[in-house]
Amino acid sequence: MKVYADHAATTQLDIDAFEAMKPFLLNDFGNASQPYSFARTAKAALKSARATIASCINADPEEIYFTSGGTESDNWAIKSTALIYGDNRATITSQIEHHAVLHACHAVERMGFPVAYLPVDSQGVVQSDTLSEYLSDSTKLVSIMFANNEIGTIQPIKELCEMAHSKGALFHTDAVQAVGHIPIDVKELNVDMLSASAHKFNGPKGIGFLYIKKGTNMVSYADGGAQEFGMRAGTENVASIVAMAVALEKNCKRMDSVNTHLVKLEHRLIASLQDAGLDFIRNGSNNKIPGNISLSFRGSEGEMLLHRLDLMGISVSTGSACDSENTQLSHVPEEYAKGTIRISLGYENTEEEITHIAASLMKILKH
Amino acid sequence: MKVYADHAATTQLDIDAFEAMKPFLLNDFGNASQPYSFARTAKAALKSARATIASCINADPEEIYFTSGGTESDNWAIKSTALIYGDNRATITSQIEHHAVLHACHAVERMGFPVAYLPVDSQGVVQSDTLSEYLSDSTKLVSIMFANNEIGTIQPIKELCEMAHSKGALFHTDAVQAVGHIPIDVKELNVDMLSASAHKFNGPKGIGFLYIKKGTNMVSYADGGAQEFGMRAGTENVASIVAMAVALEKNCKRMDSVNTHLVKLEHRLIASLQDAGLDFIRNGSNNKIPGNISLSFRGSEGEMLLHRLDLMGISVSTGSACDSENTQLSHVPEEYAKGTIRISLGYENTEEEITHIAASLMKILKH
Repeated sequence: MKVYADHAATTQLDIDAFEAMKPFLLNDFGNASQPYSFARTAKAALKSARATIASCINADPEEIYFTSGGTESDNWAIKSTALIYGDNRATITSQIEHHAVLHACHAVERMGFPVAYLPVDSQGVVQSDTLSEYLSDSTKLVSIMFANNEIGTIQPIKELCEMAHSKGALFHTDAVQAVGHIPIDVKELNVDMLSASAHKFNGPKGIGFLYIKKGTNMVSYADGGAQEFGMRAGTENVASIVAMAVALEKNCKRMDSVNTHLVKLEHRLIASLQDAGLDFIRNGSNNKIPGNISLSFRGSEGEMLLHRLDLMGISVSTGSACDSENTQLSHVPEEYAKGTIRISLGYENTEEEITHIAASLMKILKH
Repeated sequence: MKVYADHAATTQLDIDAFEAMKPFLLNDFGNASQPYSFARTAKAALKSARATIASCINADPEEIYFTSGGTESDNWAIKSTALIYGDNRATITSQIEHHAVLHACHAVERMGFPVAYLPVDSQGVVQSDTLSEYLSDSTKLVSIMFANNEIGTIQPIKELCEMAHSKGALFHTDAVQAVGHIPIDVKELNVDMLSASAHKFNGPKGIGFLYIKKGTNMVSYADGGAQEFGMRAGTENVASIVAMAVALEKNCKRMDSVNTHLVKLEHRLIASLQDAGLDFIRNGSNNKIPGNISLSFRGSEGEMLLHRLDLMGISVSTGSACDSENTQLSHVPEEYAKGTIRISLGYENTEEEITHIAASLMKILKH
């Protein structure tokens, strides 16, 4: 039995999304920026995809800027703010961000602008009190991820955003793990920028978007043609954009039922492992992305677990314990931290597969 | 009859390239950077695609960096050089570059670094004497396109590159119109960076590469994961990368026969228009990309021609006359310049289609 349980790394392209790509790959291949009628279908599809995506997060269509993925979106948000405001305007982020944010912030530091990295509490949550301590009049950008990729913890974005705004700072959130998985309303959250990546919600790889609230002052990410309202040049990847819209809309529609399914699978897995008497901690807070299960097994090794599970046909990820830069698990006792794996489930996973994962873990750990 | 004659804007995805994408879109969707066996097929395909692409331009595989397209490649080459060398190191480019280069250079100027824009001769060629006048010890980068997108003129890259190197400057070439269309050997040319875009050679949109000669000091373009040798972060778009390799290899193999076909079509078109007694100039030098036909019709209007041809089922592009930033046609007499269109042919075009284009132009212009 083959079990794919690494949906936080990437997901399978939705079959309807694939079918939606095909005409734009095969026949309607016209350059969407050309004025002749052959480009009309592509142009209309682009417009419609932008509107669909916007409606999924309660944005306006002209607030959606297509990019090559989450990493580009994060880099754009963070570097643009440093470049455009310059002069020692400070950035605040957290210690548990994805590398796309952390390493973009390191680049901002190399440009000569200060960045502060907020610690999190024992459940991996950025506390508003902590943000409050770091915020000052010189802060220009606060960037906090919507949901953590390693442990799934959802951050109090609305509260943190309001606090940033009260000091005149912009607020960006890396929502790569959240978009298409939990409800997101950019107007209610009031964030200024939000990053998303299609392949995390059953869209294709190599495409994503950055939501930019109307009126936010930004530097263009790629200079050239007038695509993406003059802010991100390059011939539009219509096929992938259309597929992203189909995948996102579909995921948003089935969100409730999928999440009920995922929570049920989670409970089943945890109960099986507990019943078997395995000594482990489940990491993160109670408020997390459904399907993201970070487990730390006492006295074990994440890499060994990954490879043994792989031999049994199961794909999971290691936790962050072996990555010196990550501090998601800094509050986990050392005898557990090294034995961390992330099992991230998707709607395709079945109860039978969960039984197989649990049985395999027991086989490995009971020896 | 529908005739697509705008191959310099974009091309149809090769069917073998599409077939090569499918498994990576549908089944082998694993994240190529993950260590488990499910990701092995994707990882191997990525490695093989890199080697194939490298061999098509006589590069080493580790000199090929995948990007989201030509615009990103150009932006990376130009901005990285400005950022890494800084301190008033000057850039030299030409007045006839694609917007991806021109606008990236404008961004470099806004960063505070000087850029010089070389004029071209009456055939749209950058003369080495002109470059020589502008080069100084403070020049860090010379960026000259391989072949012009509006008029197809091929530049003397090897000579210009040698001259740049003699002053200690790096040399980049935007080869978006050339890769897959004419033979390119980066070792013989000795360029330091070369940009390419898949959708210009029957690959998919949203993917391209930047060749970076081993040992060239570069700033990473996107920070995050360790993809692309740590220089361009973001989950690998395996399906599109594989398709790009298939398309490029196929185009390189059939290059000679396709170009013989294209030159034959070109001659037929020009002869038909001349026989009909139309008053026009063919722009550019004799040394140009096969299939790129820039024509200026006396007393006509490019936009009108485009729209009338469109109504007759023919997709072409306007020339650059209506674009105030472009100076490709600065040597064309004014009574001709405004009546410029670009007809860019591909291997799919037939003699019958050429007859239709010629007859349509006669119908429009003889009234």
